[in-house]
Amino acid sequence: MEKFTFKRLPKHIGIIPDGNRRWAQAHNKEKHEGYRYGINPGLELYKLCIDYGIQEMTFYGYTQDNTKRPAIQTKAFQSACVEAVMKLAHKDANLLVIGNANSPLFPKELLPFANKRVQFGKGLVNINFLVNYGWQWDLSSNASKSIPRIDLIIRWGGRRRLSGFLPIQSVYADFYVIDDLWPDFKKDHLYEALAWYQDQDITLGG
Amino acid sequence: MEKFTFKRLPKHIGIIPDGNRRWAQAHNKEKHEGYRYGINPGLELYKLCIDYGIQEMTFYGYTQDNTKRPAIQTKAFQSACVEAVMKLAHKDANLLVIGNANSPLFPKELLPFANKRVQFGKGLVNINFLVNYGWQWDLSSNASKSIPRIDLIIRWGGRRRLSGFLPIQSVYADFYVIDDLWPDFKKDHLYEALAWYQDQDITLGG
Repeated sequence: MEKFTFKRLPKHIGIIPDGNRRWAQAHNKEKHEGYRYGINPGLELYKLCIDYGIQEMTFYGYTQDNTKRPAIQTKAFQSACVEAVMKLAHKDANLLVIGNANSPLFPKELLPFANKRVQFGKGLVNINFLVNYGWQWDLSSNASKSIPRIDLIIRWGGRRRLSGFLPIQSVYADFYVIDDLWPDFKKDHLYEALAWYQDQDITLGG
Repeated sequence: MEKFTFKRLPKHIGIIPDGNRRWAQAHNKEKHEGYRYGINPGLELYKLCIDYGIQEMTFYGYTQDNTKRPAIQTKAFQSACVEAVMKLAHKDANLLVIGNANSPLFPKELLPFANKRVQFGKGLVNINFLVNYGWQWDLSSNASKSIPRIDLIIRWGGRRRLSGFLPIQSVYADFYVIDDLWPDFKKDHLYEALAWYQDQDITLGG
């Protein structure tokens, strides 16, 4: 990989990988088929973050609200999350799956990683994966207390909102929106977000 | 005022009026002098919102973190908040000042409006004013429980973050950033934000 240097890097990046269903429709597929095209972009991003020296990443998998969608979609994004984690298990990462695991909507394959951190390989980066997550569930249970403040949130798919993504950790996060849909992920997306981020100031209200 | 119609209006708008200090510096003034140029824009926005039919507005006055700034700045933004409220008291609004009033950093002039809603005139719109506000204070005391979900947050001054603004109510808010500094407020800013907002979808995660 070509090496870029930035004068300031985020320690912790939040990833909102939105637009899988819109991508599917734009490619003459059924909405639920989009999710599996979102797995490889996540793995590419994981590799890039290690190259750049990012220490921690949090991926928005799916929320308790998302599971109100049609069953075929719910099944598809659950499968995509399970597959993503199984692929990560062959890499070097410290994985923490955060979500309400006391529910049949939490995939049983992910129970070994639920709400505790598990090291894979060399554990080069902390990865938090929100699965069957709910912001109200989190606030009432303090479930995400071990996850630190997020410096930069990147959202794909053009929408400019947090949609319940870790409300406590996002309080001071800089928010960067990419109009391309998540399955159209390109290296340049991360590069442009980091290039933008290095010029933001950090005041934390002071 | 020229009348515009939108196919969909936010019920509740959050206002982050940032950039007063940068505006002062750009006009060869001391940083603290910027705050008083932020009062009239707020009153203009109040009038425009009534014309458009917005039901509720929440203004970010200042936070507990902000009071760590130099004393001359703290005094200046406290005075600006007091003056803004005193001007509103001659208008038609239901005012609620939200913040930690058990502190000398909360202006004593605003104690009559602290954490309870007070009607001025015809009470045409609900206005919430965050004064000596802290997101941790709010979460631990549930202080803002009477304030409903925010549909649209508009931030002036180009920064793309919430900076602790009502984390619970902002969970699903669409976030619109205006690069102009707050004292350079123009009618068109609100118009462009509303025009953008009407084309966003509302899913609440579903």
